[in-house]
Amino acid sequence: MQPLSLPPRLLMGPGPINCYPRVLQAMSTQLVGQYDPAMTGYMNETMALYRQVFKTQNQQTFLIDGTSRAGIEAALVSVLEPGDKVLVPVFGRFGHLLTEIAERADAEVHTIEVPWGEVFDPQQIEDAIKRVQPKVLAIVQGDTSTTMLQPLEELGAICRAHDVLFYTDATASIGGNPFETDAWQVDAVTVGLQKCLGGPSGSAPISMSDRFVEAVRKRQHVEAGIRDSHHQDAKGQRIRSNYFDLAMIMDYWGDERLNHHTEAATMLFGSRECAVGLLTEGQDAVLQRHVNAGTAMLKGIQAMGLKPFGDLKHKMTNVVGVYIPDMVDGEQIRHDLLNIFNIEIGTSFGPLKGKIWRIGTMGYNARQDAVLHTLQSLETVLRRAGFSLPAGAGVDAALAVYADAAANGKGSL
Amino acid sequence: MQPLSLPPRLLMGPGPINCYPRVLQAMSTQLVGQYDPAMTGYMNETMALYRQVFKTQNQQTFLIDGTSRAGIEAALVSVLEPGDKVLVPVFGRFGHLLTEIAERADAEVHTIEVPWGEVFDPQQIEDAIKRVQPKVLAIVQGDTSTTMLQPLEELGAICRAHDVLFYTDATASIGGNPFETDAWQVDAVTVGLQKCLGGPSGSAPISMSDRFVEAVRKRQHVEAGIRDSHHQDAKGQRIRSNYFDLAMIMDYWGDERLNHHTEAATMLFGSRECAVGLLTEGQDAVLQRHVNAGTAMLKGIQAMGLKPFGDLKHKMTNVVGVYIPDMVDGEQIRHDLLNIFNIEIGTSFGPLKGKIWRIGTMGYNARQDAVLHTLQSLETVLRRAGFSLPAGAGVDAALAVYADAAANGKGSL
Repeated sequence: MQPLSLPPRLLMGPGPINCYPRVLQAMSTQLVGQYDPAMTGYMNETMALYRQVFKTQNQQTFLIDGTSRAGIEAALVSVLEPGDKVLVPVFGRFGHLLTEIAERADAEVHTIEVPWGEVFDPQQIEDAIKRVQPKVLAIVQGDTSTTMLQPLEELGAICRAHDVLFYTDATASIGGNPFETDAWQVDAVTVGLQKCLGGPSGSAPISMSDRFVEAVRKRQHVEAGIRDSHHQDAKGQRIRSNYFDLAMIMDYWGDERLNHHTEAATMLFGSRECAVGLLTEGQDAVLQRHVNAGTAMLKGIQAMGLKPFGDLKHKMTNVVGVYIPDMVDGEQIRHDLLNIFNIEIGTSFGPLKGKIWRIGTMGYNARQDAVLHTLQSLETVLRRAGFSLPAGAGVDAALAVYADAAANGKGSL
Repeated sequence: MQPLSLPPRLLMGPGPINCYPRVLQAMSTQLVGQYDPAMTGYMNETMALYRQVFKTQNQQTFLIDGTSRAGIEAALVSVLEPGDKVLVPVFGRFGHLLTEIAERADAEVHTIEVPWGEVFDPQQIEDAIKRVQPKVLAIVQGDTSTTMLQPLEELGAICRAHDVLFYTDATASIGGNPFETDAWQVDAVTVGLQKCLGGPSGSAPISMSDRFVEAVRKRQHVEAGIRDSHHQDAKGQRIRSNYFDLAMIMDYWGDERLNHHTEAATMLFGSRECAVGLLTEGQDAVLQRHVNAGTAMLKGIQAMGLKPFGDLKHKMTNVVGVYIPDMVDGEQIRHDLLNIFNIEIGTSFGPLKGKIWRIGTMGYNARQDAVLHTLQSLETVLRRAGFSLPAGAGVDAALAVYADAAANGKGSL
C-alpha cells in the first residue's frame, strides 16, 4: 500500500478545480469535539462568513454535509410536500436534476425549457408562474452543462408578487459571478465549494429566508431518541428525509445544538477557509479576476479560430464551451492535454455530447498563468493533430485582455 | 479573520475522536478531476481496501458522501419501498434513528426493545422475524448511547432462513470490535470514519451483498439529464432520494462511471488513508490495541471506585459508561477536564442523561498514554471536587492491564 500520490494536474474543466492551498492546509487541522466551544464557535463563525458570501442577513445560513446536490435535495425535500407544485425552468442538465429531485419528493413538477445555450426572459418565467401557480420556483443560476448564467435579478420580485418561494442553486456560479441573496429576494440558495470557491466537493453551504424557514418549520419533527418533553409533535407532513431535514439541521446549528449528524469537521474547516479566502481577497476583486480570466480565455479561443458555444451575453464568467472543430477527435485532444501537459479540460453530455469542450477558469485557477498555459497547450495539441491555426494568436489575445484590464485599473491576475 | 486555531484536545468521548496524523496529512492532498484515471484508480483502490476492512468479497463496496447517518439513510431508503416491513431491534439511541429513518421512507416499522444497557438474544430476534415477516432486519452493531455491542454472528443465518435482508450499521464498532460481513452473512453494512477508524466524520463506507443489490436494482432509474438510449426506464418504485439512490451511486463507482454527484475527493483521500492505516498496522493488532485500551480504562475506572454502566459482557471495547457518583456535578467534572487538561469525555442523552459519562478509547486514542492521562486527570478533578478515591489506583490498574497483555504477547499499545 503506497502513500497517496496524485499527478500535478491543472484542472481547467467545468469543476472540480484545484483547491486554494490555504483550503488544503486548513483541511489537515486536527479535530475537536462536536460540542466543544471551539467547534461551535467555528460553526457560528462559518455561518457569519457565508452570510457575507451570500450577501444576506439570513440567520439560517450553514452547511449541509454532502456534495452540492445534497444541498439541492435538502432544500427541495424540506419545503416540498407531496402534491405541492413546483416550477422548474430548465436550460441545461442541472435543471433536469432539480426536476428529478422534486419528482422523487412527489411534488407536482412543471417545467418550461429553452434550448441548451440560451436562458429565460423573466417574462417567460412570470407567465409560467401565473399559469402553474406553484409553491416554489426552482432554477439554477449557472448551468455548467451549457455555460449559461440565468439572470435572477427580477425573479425575486416576481415570486413575491405571486406568493411563490424562490429557490436557486448557485453552485457553478457563486464567487465568480454576482449573487445577491437579499437584494434579489432569493428565499433559498444552495452551493458547493468545488467551482469558483476553490474548495473540494463535499460541503454544501445553504441560506434560507424567514419565509422559507417558516415553510420548513411547519413540518418540524424531532427524532424520538432525543425528544424532550418540551418538544411538540410534528405539525405538517413529516419531511421524508432525516438527513436532509432542514428543521432538524437548523436546531443543530442553532442555539439548541440538538444532536443530528456529527458535523463533518474537516469539510467545515475547508468551507470556512474558502469563505475566508474569498472575503480576504475581496469579493469584487475575486469577481474581477474571474471576469479577466474568463474574457482572456474566450478571446484566446476565438483568436485561435475556435468557436464558442451559446449566447455569449449570458455566459458565466468562469466556463466557456468550445465547438470541437470538424476533423478533430475531441477526446484525443483532451487525452493529449492531460497526458502531455497535465491539463484537464471538460467533455460534455446530453445534446452537446461530442460537440463541445468545456474550459473553466475558476477559483484558484482563474489566473493569468493558468489561462496562458492552457491556450498554449491547446494550440500545441491541435497543431500536432493537424488543425491549422495562427501561431501564438491565442496567448496574444489573452495577454491583450489582461493588458487592457490593467490599463483600466482592473488588473486582477 | 484569523487563521484556524483549535485547542489541542485529547478526545476521549464516544466520538468523534482525534484523527490519525496520516489521515489529516492525506486530506491536504491537491485534487485531480473526477474522471481522471488517477482519481478513478484511487476510487477502485478504496473499494478494494474497504472490502478488506469489511471482510467481504462484495463488489458493491464504496463510499457515501455524507456522515454516517447518510450511509444509513442510503441503505434504508434504497431498499425499503413504502409499505415494506422492516424489523428494528432497539437497544439505544441509534436503534431509534434506524426506526425514524425507516418511518420517513414510509416503511411499516416494527420494533422490539430491551432496556438501555442490554442486548438482544438472537432467539428474541428470530421470534420477532417469524411474527413480523419483514423484508429487512435493521439493527446497529454498537450503540454508543449505551456502549453495548449486539452479537450479530447468528443473525445472518436466521435472516437467510426466513428470506430477510440483514442490514446493520457498524459505525461505532468497526475497527475496534470484530466484524465479518461475509462470514456473518450481512447483506448491507454502513459505517463512518469518526470512531475506531480514526478519521473525521463526513464519509460513510458501505458494502452490499448481491441479494441486497438485487433488491435495489429493481428500483433502478436513470436521471433524465444523462439518460442514454440504452438505459431502460425504471422498473420498481423509484427510490425517493436522488442523492441516496444506491442504484445510481453503483453506476458512478462502477465501470459505467455514470455521473451522479461529484465525488468528495478530500473525504475519499481521508477514507482511503483510514483503511490503509488499519490494514498496515493489521486488523488483529488494531483490535488488540482497542481491547487493551478499553480493558485498561474499565479496570482503571473500577479501581478508582467508579461503577461502569450496563452489561459488561456485551460492552464495546472502545467506550465505557461510568455512573456519575452522587454528590458530584457531572457537567462540572467534564468542564474541568476540558478546560484544565484539554481532555474531552462524553455526556449522555435519553434515559441516561445526567446519569453517566461516556469515555472512549478509539482509533488513534486507543493508546496507553491516552488512557493514563485520562485516568490521572479524572482522578485529579474528582479529588478536587471532594470525591474521595484511592490515589493512583486508576493508573496502576490500567498499567497492570498493559503489563498482563505484554506478558501474554498481546502488548499492542
